[in-house]
Amino acid sequence: MDVFTAVKERRSIRKFLKKDIPEEIINKLIDALIWAPSAGNLQSRKFFFISDEKTKGRLASAALNQGFVSEAPVIVVCCADIAKASPYGQRGIELYALQDVSASIMAMMLVAHEEGLGTCWVGAFKDEEVSRVLGLGNMFRPVAIVPVGYPAKIPRPASRVSRTEAVEFR
Amino acid sequence: MDVFTAVKERRSIRKFLKKDIPEEIINKLIDALIWAPSAGNLQSRKFFFISDEKTKGRLASAALNQGFVSEAPVIVVCCADIAKASPYGQRGIELYALQDVSASIMAMMLVAHEEGLGTCWVGAFKDEEVSRVLGLGNMFRPVAIVPVGYPAKIPRPASRVSRTEAVEFR
Repeated sequence: MDVFTAVKERRSIRKFLKKDIPEEIINKLIDALIWAPSAGNLQSRKFFFISDEKTKGRLASAALNQGFVSEAPVIVVCCADIAKASPYGQRGIELYALQDVSASIMAMMLVAHEEGLGTCWVGAFKDEEVSRVLGLGNMFRPVAIVPVGYPAKIPRPASRVSRTEAVEFR
Repeated sequence: MDVFTAVKERRSIRKFLKKDIPEEIINKLIDALIWAPSAGNLQSRKFFFISDEKTKGRLASAALNQGFVSEAPVIVVCCADIAKASPYGQRGIELYALQDVSASIMAMMLVAHEEGLGTCWVGAFKDEEVSRVLGLGNMFRPVAIVPVGYPAKIPRPASRVSRTEAVEFR
C-alpha cells in the first residue's frame, strides 16, 4: 500500500475481531516504533505490549472505562522515557519525548493499516492508574494507549479542516 | 512505495538541492498533515509554509543558527493551536495538541519520502524568536520546524535500540 493512501484511509478503529496478530506482524509494528525519528536520536520512548486479559481490563478501566480498548488482542501503552530525555532538560522531557513517542505511534499506525490492522490513539486516561497497573515508576510517563487488532467495523472518515484552514503560506 | 519501507528508509536530511517542489506535491504534504489523527478530532494544529528567503534566514537563525534549515525550498513551521486545544484544558494544550502536531509531521515526512523529498524534524529553536518572526501571537505555539526539499545528501541510518530495549511484553 502506498504511503499517501495509508495516511488518507487510516481510521480510528473502536471495534475489533477476536483474532490474534501473527508474531511477524508484531515485529513489523515494533520496527515502525523504533525507526520513527527522535530528537538527538535519544529515542526517549518505551512501549509496553499488553495481551494479558486481566491487565487489559484494568487499562480499559484506567482509560475512563472505554471498554473497546480491552477488546483488542494487544494494547500498546506508549511512554515517554524521562531518563533518556533528561539530557535536554525540561524541553526534552515535556516536548521532545512527547514528540518521539508520537512519531513512533504514527509510524506504527500506518504500518498497522498497511497490514490490515486497526488502531485508535487513546489519550484520555488516568496517568497514575496506568502507571500503577503496569508498575511504571517515575521514569516512564504513559502518554497514549493504542489498542491494535483486526477491525470489526471501519467508520466513515471524520471531518477535516480545509487546506486553507490547516496551512498559511508566507 | 509501501509504508513499511518508507518508515525504515526515511532519513533526516540536512542538505538540499536548489529545486522547487511542485504545487501538487505540496498539496499532498498538506493532505498528509490534515489526515493524521487528532484528539477528539479538534485538529489542534496549524502549519506555516515558508518560502520567502528572508523569513527562512530568520528562522534558521532562531533555530540556533542551523544554516541548513534555510537551504530547503520550504520550511514548515508546525504549531500547536492553543485555542482549539483548550476544550481539554491543560491536558489538551500540553499533551494532545503536541501529539496532534507530531502525528501530522510524521505523516507528512513519510509522504515526503515517498515523493522523493527529504525532511528533518528540528526541535532546537528559540520559541519566542520563531513566534516573533512569524507574528504568531499567543494562540499558536511553534513546536517543530521542518525543512522540506530534494535531498542533496542522504546520510546512513542512525543507530537504533533493539526490539527488546524498545518494547516490553506483558
